[in-house]
Amino acid sequence: MTDLQSILTRLSDDMHSDGDWGDVAAYIPELAGVDPAQFGIAAVLADGTTFTAGDTDVPFSAQSITKVFTLAIALGRSGDQLWTRVGREPSGRAFNSIVQLEQEQGRPRNPFINAGAIAVTDEILAGRAPRDTLAEIVQFIRAAADDRDIHINDAVARSEFAHGHRNFALAHFMASCGNLKNTPERTLGTYFHHCAIEMSVLQLARAGLFLVEAAEAPRLISAGRMRRLNALMMTCGHYDGSGDFAYRVGLPAKSGVGGGILAIVPGRASVAVWSPGLNRYGNSLKGTEAMARLAREMDWSVF
Amino acid sequence: MTDLQSILTRLSDDMHSDGDWGDVAAYIPELAGVDPAQFGIAAVLADGTTFTAGDTDVPFSAQSITKVFTLAIALGRSGDQLWTRVGREPSGRAFNSIVQLEQEQGRPRNPFINAGAIAVTDEILAGRAPRDTLAEIVQFIRAAADDRDIHINDAVARSEFAHGHRNFALAHFMASCGNLKNTPERTLGTYFHHCAIEMSVLQLARAGLFLVEAAEAPRLISAGRMRRLNALMMTCGHYDGSGDFAYRVGLPAKSGVGGGILAIVPGRASVAVWSPGLNRYGNSLKGTEAMARLAREMDWSVF
Amino acid sequence: MTDLQSILTRLSDDMHSDGDWGDVAAYIPELAGVDPAQFGIAAVLADGTTFTAGDTDVPFSAQSITKVFTLAIALGRSGDQLWTRVGREPSGRAFNSIVQLEQEQGRPRNPFINAGAIAVTDEILAGRAPRDTLAEIVQFIRAAADDRDIHINDAVARSEFAHGHRNFALAHFMASCGNLKNTPERTLGTYFHHCAIEMSVLQLARAGLFLVEAAEAPRLISAGRMRRLNALMMTCGHYDGSGDFAYRVGLPAKSGVGGGILAIVPGRASVAVWSPGLNRYGNSLKGTEAMARLAREMDWSVF
Amino acid sequence: MTDLQSILTRLSDDMHSDGDWGDVAAYIPELAGVDPAQFGIAAVLADGTTFTAGDTDVPFSAQSITKVFTLAIALGRSGDQLWTRVGREPSGRAFNSIVQLEQEQGRPRNPFINAGAIAVTDEILAGRAPRDTLAEIVQFIRAAADDRDIHINDAVARSEFAHGHRNFALAHFMASCGNLKNTPERTLGTYFHHCAIEMSVLQLARAGLFLVEAAEAPRLISAGRMRRLNALMMTCGHYDGSGDFAYRVGLPAKSGVGGGILAIVPGRASVAVWSPGLNRYGNSLKGTEAMARLAREMDWSVF
Repeated sequence: MTDLQSILTRLSDDMHSDGDWGDVAAYIPELAGVDPAQFGIAAVLADGTTFTAGDTDVPFSAQSITKVFTLAIALGRSGDQLWTRVGREPSGRAFNSIVQLEQEQGRPRNPFINAGAIAVTDEILAGRAPRDTLAEIVQFIRAAADDRDIHINDAVARSEFAHGHRNFALAHFMASCGNLKNTPERTLGTYFHHCAIEMSVLQLARAGLFLVEAAEAPRLISAGRMRRLNALMMTCGHYDGSGDFAYRVGLPAKSGVGGGILAIVPGRASVAVWSPGLNRYGNSLKGTEAMARLAREMDWSVF
Repeated sequence: MTDLQSILTRLSDDMHSDGDWGDVAAYIPELAGVDPAQFGIAAVLADGTTFTAGDTDVPFSAQSITKVFTLAIALGRSGDQLWTRVGREPSGRAFNSIVQLEQEQGRPRNPFINAGAIAVTDEILAGRAPRDTLAEIVQFIRAAADDRDIHINDAVARSEFAHGHRNFALAHFMASCGNLKNTPERTLGTYFHHCAIEMSVLQLARAGLFLVEAAEAPRLISAGRMRRLNALMMTCGHYDGSGDFAYRVGLPAKSGVGGGILAIVPGRASVAVWSPGLNRYGNSLKGTEAMARLAREMDWSVF
Repeated sequence: MTDLQSILTRLSDDMHSDGDWGDVAAYIPELAGVDPAQFGIAAVLADGTTFTAGDTDVPFSAQSITKVFTLAIALGRSGDQLWTRVGREPSGRAFNSIVQLEQEQGRPRNPFINAGAIAVTDEILAGRAPRDTLAEIVQFIRAAADDRDIHINDAVARSEFAHGHRNFALAHFMASCGNLKNTPERTLGTYFHHCAIEMSVLQLARAGLFLVEAAEAPRLISAGRMRRLNALMMTCGHYDGSGDFAYRVGLPAKSGVGGGILAIVPGRASVAVWSPGLNRYGNSLKGTEAMARLAREMDWSVF
Repeated sequence: MTDLQSILTRLSDDMHSDGDWGDVAAYIPELAGVDPAQFGIAAVLADGTTFTAGDTDVPFSAQSITKVFTLAIALGRSGDQLWTRVGREPSGRAFNSIVQLEQEQGRPRNPFINAGAIAVTDEILAGRAPRDTLAEIVQFIRAAADDRDIHINDAVARSEFAHGHRNFALAHFMASCGNLKNTPERTLGTYFHHCAIEMSVLQLARAGLFLVEAAEAPRLISAGRMRRLNALMMTCGHYDGSGDFAYRVGLPAKSGVGGGILAIVPGRASVAVWSPGLNRYGNSLKGTEAMARLAREMDWSVF
């Protein structure tokens, strides 16, 4: 596996020397100030061996990547009952579209578009205090990463809450269809906070191991659930760019607007990449490119 | 005009003796308990002569009919500037649809669908206290009706606020597009209160006179603005049933979910009808039928 | 009525001296070559008195204006049965949109958008030869205008047929929903031919008299049907610019992509205007402006 | 691999003994008469070893499954140039929806929905006779299956052509957007004919081997292209049920309305199943269930 290290190092060098970094997400003020000229990558094999290159220690806002973890928790609590509230199909729409929500009468298409992730958060919040729910989410991620130094950035959460009108529109719309168990304020307060969890690429790659079926990897969920979560990441993990990511990379993965991507090599590895500049789908520009090259050079595509 | 009185009396008798009253709007709890078996009609000629029949003294919730008055006030305050925030086209959609709002990037199609009326309320609220804004709206309607006994039903307003998730979705969506000057809570608080204004059909018919151009009628707005408001009522006044109402009745009119309809016979009369059971478009079932018969028998169609 | 003549003359002079003519419709090759710098207007009162100004003798392609005549014929043949195939509501969409057709399962929103007009043509064509159907349509218009010199421009019809893929898409879609009685080729062949009828503004204004209820005007349809046709022209006659036209002009009217507009002043007059440059809704730019000024100066708004 | 044989046999027995067969596609008259109570399955390993059970010799209409082969041919001829005409994203819509085509201005979302497959056929047809194009398609499939006894069913092709209004609507719509190189008749004539290719499950499973990267499998396309085709099958291969299929089965696969499904186990096997009764997405009811069980029992999910 010296190969892997040299590939990561070369990738990081190439990315740092190529000037086109893309634009940072502007709609969350706290994130708008992040320097786009950063790139880090980390791969953790099923046996725990770790390889890194670039800006691997900088904590960044995990954002939508946390939706993989909340979905795992929700399925653990509610089982297949969850699917009465949210679908499993790619949306064919932007991540924050409300059009489909009206067409499908308040049932989001999948758990990774905003509306679906809000429904998932609402599900695990039901009957509990937001504080306890957030503690469970953070605890799950820390356990997966085997690292207690993972935290919520309150300033980012508050910034999103203050500028989250689109998400409030989605939550109120679901409420009007009877598909919200808590108030929009309560559910979104929790949602914005778990989206504001920060990790470095190394922490994120380690946390992703819970989706790698291997004797040496931590066992937080069953093998069958791993597969199904990976399937959802493949078809829905990159919003309306999921088909393109599958075509170019061939790995189940979930992106976040903070510029992170978590990809799973089933049975073999968990890989995280981070570069805050985004492409037109709202996914990391250089992160996507790096994943495509890495999968090709390591022959990691599941296809 | 003995004719008119006998026509109204006959209409009321026929409506009261026909058992099919339709269903009352169920989504506002305070209104869900209204007895559907009621019908009242009032016509006020340009010279102030008044004709009534049926349940003419019962105050009912004016709801969307108040949007005609708030639009008049908004145009008085902001002039054509208002049209940068809201369009003038029929929507081809249900009154509470959010689909078109996304397609048109937060600019409602017209001032009579919910989103458009919320934008109008937001416009006249800007920079003022809700209390003062509501006072101006009520005062405008009282002046138009020449009747101080017109009030807001607080219980209805609070009931709508508590169950108004769809309207909150619309307001937050507009806010996310930069088309809301106040907070959703503030604008909707004002909106729900003016929708909860109660009038009898007699009071409503009198209030409608401000849209009748005649020497004897009160002059609250210019003749040109009257015409333009009437045009908007014709093309957009009955939500997605506006074309059908124009086809069957041929008068500019505005309906409310409380079962009221205000129709204008340009230059000649203001007519109000009320019957709380609704048809599939959300407009008064018997009210629409009565307006069609009245317009035909009086030869009042503008066409 | 010397006034009316002087107003028309002034309108024509002003329009000819203002250089902004708009762009001619480009998608029908035969029409793309028309010189946009033309303007003509004609008004015919209920008693037959005629006033004209500008380019009043030039025959132009009536296009969608013919849909008023085919609708009158279809209602004469099929009565209210027609409304099972086509609705009466404004579309809130572009004239050639296919989106709504899918949402409403093949039933067009109204008879003046393309899909609806195709259904109307299909209705009057059923069981007859296209040649006979076209003869009836032309004959109806000639009778209305009291002028035998009105013809179909075959070259325009063929040009539209050859470039009419969007209309073929609409027709095939309706056929797939069971809402087409003839083959798309047969119905569209007839449709393109009646759209290619040419008239001067004077001929068109005369033909419009059949929608004016007056002792002196020709009686081709009943007074009730006149009113209902006028109502449809008001709410749906200018595609997705119908609300704006009602707001600015206040008259029932139908536009065509050839740059013509036919407006009815109920009980009083028929007015036709023509200028081939279009605005963003596909309606005549100067024609709309002229109608707005004429209605204002003559106090002709129905509102 | 005795296991595999016993699993297939048990699957076939279970399916034949369970009475709920679903409904055969009704919109193609020639297919509407197929007996739904049939089930066959075949698996071919990378080394050519073959396992079958049930109705394995009955030729059925491959329909949309042929789109995998035409896409491979189109990429071979046009390379990535093809993607300027068609996208690579799941559609979030029914297979024959025209809504998205209007929203995306005539560029289909992916090559497996009807519009996209028509564009692919149009691409490989350009500049050649339909007869030659069809010969190439059939020849490609015969070579992949190593079986000359694969043919087009002309009666089915003609039946589809005669009842193909929806596909004509799609083709004309693309033509109106400039995204069709041949006439709709010519392209659809070719399209309906390749959709009417008939194969048994055994032939289809053998033909699928061209997507399995293995020393022993036939090499018709490069390994990179195999992966990318498999990726498209995973995200878009089951229309608006693709997410569900990925979730339940975890294999790249393509379904056809004739009741067939071709699934690829990357690097290991090609599997075909057939049962003509369909589920609500238009995919084989029992075929989907069988694939889910087979993938689970063989541990074949790529995730």
